[in-house]
Amino acid sequence: MTDQSSDPKPGSYVNKEGGYERKARYIETRITKDGRDGYAVEPGRYRLAVSRACPWAHRTILTRQLLGLEEAISMAVAGPVHDEDSWTFDLDPGGVDPVLGIPRLKDAYDKRPDGYPESGITVPAVVDTQTGMVVTNDFHQIVKDLVTEWTDHQRPDAPDLWPEHLRDEIEEVSDLVYRDVNNGVYRCGFAGTQEAYDAAYDQLWARMDWLEERLSTRRYLVGDQLTLADVRLWPTLVRFDAAYHGHFKCNRTKLTEMPALWGYARDLWQTWDFGSTVNFEHIKAHYYATHLDINPTGIVPKGPDTSGWTVPAGREALGPK
Amino acid sequence: MTDQSSDPKPGSYVNKEGGYERKARYIETRITKDGRDGYAVEPGRYRLAVSRACPWAHRTILTRQLLGLEEAISMAVAGPVHDEDSWTFDLDPGGVDPVLGIPRLKDAYDKRPDGYPESGITVPAVVDTQTGMVVTNDFHQIVKDLVTEWTDHQRPDAPDLWPEHLRDEIEEVSDLVYRDVNNGVYRCGFAGTQEAYDAAYDQLWARMDWLEERLSTRRYLVGDQLTLADVRLWPTLVRFDAAYHGHFKCNRTKLTEMPALWGYARDLWQTWDFGSTVNFEHIKAHYYATHLDINPTGIVPKGPDTSGWTVPAGREALGPK
Repeated sequence: MTDQSSDPKPGSYVNKEGGYERKARYIETRITKDGRDGYAVEPGRYRLAVSRACPWAHRTILTRQLLGLEEAISMAVAGPVHDEDSWTFDLDPGGVDPVLGIPRLKDAYDKRPDGYPESGITVPAVVDTQTGMVVTNDFHQIVKDLVTEWTDHQRPDAPDLWPEHLRDEIEEVSDLVYRDVNNGVYRCGFAGTQEAYDAAYDQLWARMDWLEERLSTRRYLVGDQLTLADVRLWPTLVRFDAAYHGHFKCNRTKLTEMPALWGYARDLWQTWDFGSTVNFEHIKAHYYATHLDINPTGIVPKGPDTSGWTVPAGREALGPK
Repeated sequence: MTDQSSDPKPGSYVNKEGGYERKARYIETRITKDGRDGYAVEPGRYRLAVSRACPWAHRTILTRQLLGLEEAISMAVAGPVHDEDSWTFDLDPGGVDPVLGIPRLKDAYDKRPDGYPESGITVPAVVDTQTGMVVTNDFHQIVKDLVTEWTDHQRPDAPDLWPEHLRDEIEEVSDLVYRDVNNGVYRCGFAGTQEAYDAAYDQLWARMDWLEERLSTRRYLVGDQLTLADVRLWPTLVRFDAAYHGHFKCNRTKLTEMPALWGYARDLWQTWDFGSTVNFEHIKAHYYATHLDINPTGIVPKGPDTSGWTVPAGREALGPK
């Protein structure tokens, strides 16, 4: 998922009170074991299109890696900055994705006979390599289906990211995190009025304080294990100081100034190898060079210093890995 | 002094390499004991026009307060945001300065028969209340003259901010601080190209590291006492996290993440009552609402949390007050 359409303009995604509203309709087709929507689980058939910049795509990257699905589902990585037609494969030789053979993700969306929702050309998107067509871009559902439908192709010791007995709590926490934090930072950054910004900021920081307290006595967000709730939260945390703090004015404190959240974020970077999925240059280039309505110069900050991410988190006393 | 003219436009103050250049010509008339420029030191005669937002004005406010010159030289405080004619007295009843009787600082500049330099309508400016005319706006000289020419009206225990035996070192350090830090943050924020920004950022942080090391073993910048070198540096530090870190992309670290500089800054806030001269709301409103070329929405961040400024600095072991 991108931040919104490929060519953000001030006001184009702001409601009449000046608040940012994410267009939240996505393609609902699912890839399942039984193939009931016409798309069965099949190793080697699908290609996950992502950007290293995008937090919504990041959740699918993390889940794929945690479950050991790298061989079963290949990955197309778009460059961090859009052209007028949204995400492009400008990092690849010749500017063309070597498997899909297309220069733009839009080409795979355009193959859909019935079009696609107003949310536009977004990552993550799962493309069927047989037809070159986008099957789904519903980031919430993609992550769950990687967990529940791709079980036959996961590595043997894959963690159970969505255990039955914790699902209600995972849903509850994830919804709050989505509303106030994942999307909350965008509501700060894309606010069209001071009042809308102020309200989004207060809502964000109330939830950040809630998370800080929750994580001061437990290693993970829900239960005593890594779950999809952590996968939901973490991509926003890793972008916090690099993008949201300055660019989106989420600047009460840095993540590094919140001891439990900062330790938690480093723990996942280190213990679960989340760090290997992060490209800070892509993250910064995307936010600062794509949203020219809030950063007209397009200049990308050299900071922040990210060396602290590899300082040991020391969270072992709060619970087992 | 303001950041530049009253109506900044992208490119208008950027050289052909994309670097920011401050227009550095000011009115050179001095107020002296002997009155050789036509303006003799005289309690009650002059009015210091400032903004609480402006770091250059802040240095005159600090010096006036440290020397106990509040009774001798009154102060006109402009609001934080410009209109098209630069600084206005919109905080005062009826929008008019009660002593000068004018709504805009420009009115006092316009009384000068020979005009004023291209630096424009800037604070600090010293106005002669007998004529209503700006006498000088040379912020470097104003501070020194408060120290050396107004001695008869300073409080008895005023600190010697510019001691003879330290003047060479004070000049040397102040020049480096001016070039790399005071003006360096503007060179980051107003850079017209990525290359100009990158160069300014590197220069700023090399100097910040130099300052951090210097202040890790000494309480003050020069000698073992408060001097004009500290007055030069401090107004930039107090604005660092509130304005320069995000708005000007000076975001390698926050001031609060540099232990010696942060302790030093708090020490001066607390020990020398610098804190009483600070208005964070004016600072943030000025930077974020005036530079619409780099913050087009004009939205002013609610952060950062500034409560840390009053946490004891604990720098007594490094030297006497």
